[in-house]
Amino acid sequence: MKDVANLKLPVMARIGDPVSRVSTPALLLDLEAFEANAQRMAELTQRHGVALRPHAKAHKSSAIAQAQLALGAVGICCQKMSEAYPFVAKGVQSIHISNEFVGADKVAMAVELAGYVRLSVCVDHVAQVDALGKAVSQAGVSIAVFPEVDIGQGRCGVKGNDALAALVDRIARYQGLSFGGLQAYHGGIQHVASWEQRRSAASVAADAAAQYVQFLAARGIACPVVTGGGTGTAEFDVTSGVFTEIQPGSYVFMDGDYGSKDWVGGWKPAHSLFIASTIMSTAKAGLAVCDVGLKGVAVDSGLPLVRPGEYGDQLKYTAANDEHGILQIAAGNERDYLGERLFLIPGHCDPTANLYQQYVGFRGDVVECLWNIDARGLSQ
Amino acid sequence: MKDVANLKLPVMARIGDPVSRVSTPALLLDLEAFEANAQRMAELTQRHGVALRPHAKAHKSSAIAQAQLALGAVGICCQKMSEAYPFVAKGVQSIHISNEFVGADKVAMAVELAGYVRLSVCVDHVAQVDALGKAVSQAGVSIAVFPEVDIGQGRCGVKGNDALAALVDRIARYQGLSFGGLQAYHGGIQHVASWEQRRSAASVAADAAAQYVQFLAARGIACPVVTGGGTGTAEFDVTSGVFTEIQPGSYVFMDGDYGSKDWVGGWKPAHSLFIASTIMSTAKAGLAVCDVGLKGVAVDSGLPLVRPGEYGDQLKYTAANDEHGILQIAAGNERDYLGERLFLIPGHCDPTANLYQQYVGFRGDVVECLWNIDARGLSQ
Repeated sequence: MKDVANLKLPVMARIGDPVSRVSTPALLLDLEAFEANAQRMAELTQRHGVALRPHAKAHKSSAIAQAQLALGAVGICCQKMSEAYPFVAKGVQSIHISNEFVGADKVAMAVELAGYVRLSVCVDHVAQVDALGKAVSQAGVSIAVFPEVDIGQGRCGVKGNDALAALVDRIARYQGLSFGGLQAYHGGIQHVASWEQRRSAASVAADAAAQYVQFLAARGIACPVVTGGGTGTAEFDVTSGVFTEIQPGSYVFMDGDYGSKDWVGGWKPAHSLFIASTIMSTAKAGLAVCDVGLKGVAVDSGLPLVRPGEYGDQLKYTAANDEHGILQIAAGNERDYLGERLFLIPGHCDPTANLYQQYVGFRGDVVECLWNIDARGLSQ
Repeated sequence: MKDVANLKLPVMARIGDPVSRVSTPALLLDLEAFEANAQRMAELTQRHGVALRPHAKAHKSSAIAQAQLALGAVGICCQKMSEAYPFVAKGVQSIHISNEFVGADKVAMAVELAGYVRLSVCVDHVAQVDALGKAVSQAGVSIAVFPEVDIGQGRCGVKGNDALAALVDRIARYQGLSFGGLQAYHGGIQHVASWEQRRSAASVAADAAAQYVQFLAARGIACPVVTGGGTGTAEFDVTSGVFTEIQPGSYVFMDGDYGSKDWVGGWKPAHSLFIASTIMSTAKAGLAVCDVGLKGVAVDSGLPLVRPGEYGDQLKYTAANDEHGILQIAAGNERDYLGERLFLIPGHCDPTANLYQQYVGFRGDVVECLWNIDARGLSQ
């Protein structure tokens, strides 16, 4: 037997290779579709004079963030404090943590990050303001603080003017903290299936945000930024007159869940994110078993779809085990699929991308780039 | 602003620290419970003269594999070819790939691994045998091949004596291949809730495996190994008289799904795997929002449970968003939980462990070890 000191994991994808030679499962990015999606969202926001701050929780990749910044994004959002580190290390200069955080470890990370970039964070409790304010004052750094207001989601964020006023007043107590504006996000309405109903829900949510802005204005407090919105409501948020900045993430990928919605009135991003899979067992009549299961695709928002086209009508992904995907063969298409390769569209891109180390970017049939998912697993 | 070249991600857990100082989310391993589970399974198999080959797909950690080998395991199972590499690199000497694989890349990995360890693999199609046989013969290495027989799962594995005979005959054509025995695994019956019904289902499955052994014996072919079984049926498999080796994985952790089953007749492993979580928003009456969502816990087999004890009766995890976990506060327990920390029991350990970089092993209230999840994400 050879000495294991010589053993190295093989390279799973190489630039210049045909896509068909990439080891599966692999997370593939169709660069043409990706670039078109990124460009369209940049244009949409620019046309309406609204800032674009894409959410990096969707892709967790500094290479993708840099592509978004090159198209005019004002910075990025992260959802967790540790998630921001690889983006800062790769030169992103403005980061908004669009989420609450508690604990000395998280506060220390915020203080550290604020020494390197323009950092803003969210709060919905005075204790969060106090913990951050004391640390920031000691360290001599500055952080813009955004009270989160609940505009209908019922998850985080304060409800009611008094609670908002208490946060704004508390922020003012600390020299290193400044009131940055309002975080106003409603995740649930992003996924309303009907375009008309989504438009209407987005309008209700924007009105709720506007009321908080007016309340603060009546107290003489200007709201420099109102940030929120996502892929599903972006087209409405940019014309709302309330949001000065939007935070879409999935638009660069277009997952199966968003893809299943009604986009009749507006622009529908193209699917750019796929999982390459190989059929590795065909021992059962009517079934093909592929190599993508729960560790290769997130199933919280539905099972993956077989990409329309060659296999889309023949095979349907019907069950995910840990390392196996079960595909039913449609009547009339029975044959031995062993070794054939297909593209799956993940139901939910955010937790799917978090399962992989890299995006294999391709154009036509050739691998063009390998983009590291450098914030993968950084959930602290 | 400082130079980003100086920025480093903080350490999330330190040996010797109290568990309460570990940054959340964190994957915690209660070493006392873990060691007891590992010991009990080793004793069970030794008592019945059955080999224990734990499945490393559950933990993906060479440190845990080494603990299992130290207790007498004959080797480990992996589910994917790339998954085996870190275990080989850390000195594991016998690996069974308990799954089918197709493609030149996978065959090349098998040939390479066979130069370093005793490798066995599964097949359920003659084309898999041919591809491997040609490559192995060229490379001058040896691989033991296990035809997989379907004993009721209806996923991979051949059904019927003719299909099995065809595989055994095909294996004999190639000098570098040897017939290693049978792979006979039924995943579905592992999760039958009732102990009695699980026992009965395990008996039916074992009988199905026995028939294939008898068929081969009648043809003069001895079956040196019959390998299969899992955590849910291990206690039945060891007395089946058919299985010479069992492949349980989850027993070291005991996830929420397995924990919810009926174990009245036998030994029930203790929960050793937890996710440490912090409540980071309490802005809604009746709710506490924690920092563990879909990227911190797999939800395919149910939402995580709050560990019984301090918080178990007060809080119930009722929904997972990407980075948020929603906890309902039980009536009579309303108070502000902001900043409090709790332990969650994941519904399904395999895909949950795959989300983390390390196990934070603790004894009492102190962090004792940090075990790398070195096969994390290796799904090829």
